[in-house]
Amino acid sequence: MKELIEIGKKAKEASKQLAHLNTDQKNKILTLVANLLESSASSILEANATDLKLGEKMGLKGAIVERLTLSEDRIRGIAEGLREIVKLEDPIGEIQEMKQRPNGLLIGKKRVPLGVVGVIYESRPNVTADVAGLCIKTGNVCVLRGGKEAFRSNNAIVQVFHQAIKECGLDHRMVQLVQDTSRESAMAMMKLNAYLDILIPRGGAGLIQAVVQNSTVPVIETGVGNCHIYVDKAADLKKAVAIVYNAKTHRPGVCNAAESLLVHEQVAGEMLPSIGAALAEGGVEIRGDKTSCKLIPDAVPASEEDWSMEYLDLVISSKVVGSLEEAVDHINSYGSKHSESIITENYSHAQYFLERVDAAAVYVNASTRFTDGFEFGYGAEIGISTQKLHARGPMGLKELTTSKYIIYGSGQIR
Amino acid sequence: MKELIEIGKKAKEASKQLAHLNTDQKNKILTLVANLLESSASSILEANATDLKLGEKMGLKGAIVERLTLSEDRIRGIAEGLREIVKLEDPIGEIQEMKQRPNGLLIGKKRVPLGVVGVIYESRPNVTADVAGLCIKTGNVCVLRGGKEAFRSNNAIVQVFHQAIKECGLDHRMVQLVQDTSRESAMAMMKLNAYLDILIPRGGAGLIQAVVQNSTVPVIETGVGNCHIYVDKAADLKKAVAIVYNAKTHRPGVCNAAESLLVHEQVAGEMLPSIGAALAEGGVEIRGDKTSCKLIPDAVPASEEDWSMEYLDLVISSKVVGSLEEAVDHINSYGSKHSESIITENYSHAQYFLERVDAAAVYVNASTRFTDGFEFGYGAEIGISTQKLHARGPMGLKELTTSKYIIYGSGQIR
Repeated sequence: MKELIEIGKKAKEASKQLAHLNTDQKNKILTLVANLLESSASSILEANATDLKLGEKMGLKGAIVERLTLSEDRIRGIAEGLREIVKLEDPIGEIQEMKQRPNGLLIGKKRVPLGVVGVIYESRPNVTADVAGLCIKTGNVCVLRGGKEAFRSNNAIVQVFHQAIKECGLDHRMVQLVQDTSRESAMAMMKLNAYLDILIPRGGAGLIQAVVQNSTVPVIETGVGNCHIYVDKAADLKKAVAIVYNAKTHRPGVCNAAESLLVHEQVAGEMLPSIGAALAEGGVEIRGDKTSCKLIPDAVPASEEDWSMEYLDLVISSKVVGSLEEAVDHINSYGSKHSESIITENYSHAQYFLERVDAAAVYVNASTRFTDGFEFGYGAEIGISTQKLHARGPMGLKELTTSKYIIYGSGQIR
Repeated sequence: MKELIEIGKKAKEASKQLAHLNTDQKNKILTLVANLLESSASSILEANATDLKLGEKMGLKGAIVERLTLSEDRIRGIAEGLREIVKLEDPIGEIQEMKQRPNGLLIGKKRVPLGVVGVIYESRPNVTADVAGLCIKTGNVCVLRGGKEAFRSNNAIVQVFHQAIKECGLDHRMVQLVQDTSRESAMAMMKLNAYLDILIPRGGAGLIQAVVQNSTVPVIETGVGNCHIYVDKAADLKKAVAIVYNAKTHRPGVCNAAESLLVHEQVAGEMLPSIGAALAEGGVEIRGDKTSCKLIPDAVPASEEDWSMEYLDLVISSKVVGSLEEAVDHINSYGSKHSESIITENYSHAQYFLERVDAAAVYVNASTRFTDGFEFGYGAEIGISTQKLHARGPMGLKELTTSKYIIYGSGQIR
């Protein structure tokens, strides 16, 4: 696709400049963008209003409209997010593990930008600014391909970036928005190996799987979360109720929300009625196995599919298990390797769970809702990786970098 | 493909045990394998002789036969390699950056095995033992798909692993050799996302590109090296001659050998005749641009394709450039991002080259031949990554691991 090849070429060109800017230069851009976003709020909101109007005609509703909608407050939030990125330490240039080899070679591992980062995302216009901000801070050119429903909003935000970059006398092509929002442009991006160093899909399971299956560009798989809470036989009832309730209801539409409850059979009689009552009060539908349904009056029977579901809604599956080992096996079989938590007061059970569960984040006595770049102290997040290569779990600035070995010699040969 | 799905299932099963073995248990296997390889040398050599005989009928010759051939000495070398792996520190279990968050959560990043590592390789049977050894040490199950010309040799080596693993009372399925060596089995491996966590191709450019283009399993691209030596205008003649000669002739068939020479025009008259004479003495064919051909009597004219060639042979391309910047641009355009070296006594030129050249390893005043896990002090190597994701440059034990966040809570909710 012609547009994408053009974008790719420009991106490579812009990367030659951006990759070598110092921290002050990058922070200056970000600060200027933050200020301009606030002062240009009205034009961004206008573009957003058009998107929303067209969306209404296209029949968009509910959560999508909610995610698409901007407001003065949200724009201020986006600007604040960029100011937070300014405050974060610049990971670029750090040299790790520098050592002198026996032959006198001095070898160090220098942190450098990836180069050109592609992101395919759906309806949230704030992703445009978040990704562009994180990429600029890490010296990466970004190629953004947002959803068509947010096209005007995204464009308005990118215009602000361009204005700020130009005011700094730099190459505005460091931030590029793909203008073609067809399915074909997404597919073309997945084959753009000559220009993209990495491709990150952000959105629903359908988008992510399409990218994983079709991309020849290296992909970081993000986000799908079928997260479990396992209530061990040595669980504290109060903690169990509070954590299950929080993990399910605090923000059910996000990937680190709990989707499945496992309870040890020896304590199911004590735990499930209380947990069930709390969830019912929170408006949660419970899909249970036989025992769960017996112990929770409002529960409906679960089908085999329920164990794999990411509901992203006020629904949770519930299963009674015979042992800690069975719980871990169930999680490793049905989970999406995102976030998993055990509620227990037993030391060995906690250690076993931490060791054996295969996931990006494994918790003892805490809500899965903490799997998040901000909560982990990274100050920012470009996504949550559920794959094992390059990055796992919340991806902050460091995950947008790679390394190169730099070697100081004095004439060494082999 | 049925065989691969079966292998995948067994691999996942074996991973449940291997991933949680402690260092002593893993070292015990490796030591036993090393001893058994030496005591079973005759049966391995017998299998290898059959491979060689069949290879002769198939018309194999030269370098391939050389790579395929085992001897008592080579087997001892393989066993010694495994004993070296025993001595290396086990990276698994290390917990990095453990910190207490303001809410009391204790968050750490634990180093864990990737899970199941697939490797597709060509004719060298020693790769079988090297990869299996590195994978066992890092708690990874390996699925090995070697070339058909080495099938009997590979099988004999894998039998020794199985014997040792069984003698340790452990699951021998932690090392698996694909029995079908057809093109189809390689293709099927590239789609085995359900069972493989990573796929590493080791071999020529054709194999590597086939894997990059077709694999839906995350790939680590290895090995192709179009490495340059840039002789700066501030170069020391003696160092330049020695380093170019070494980088080209020390072992021309490997990926970190130099394939292209760039010389600053201001010193070409001084440098090229001496470098050319040394290379000619080493039997190297020089393919030069106009100026190079003028200055080196034996040089033949280069075509545009020569700038991109990985000869893997006693051939080198030579080009005279007008500036340091032109040299860097040429390298970033035609290089394979493997290893690049500048010869200079000028501080700023050295720093510019280190900063601007985009490659896994960038050298000042040293031969590119040092890009190697052993030379870098990692004690072992599973390949040299030329991609930017997950690993870049020589991949040792750490590059065969991933992380998981472990979080100790005391009832935290959001």
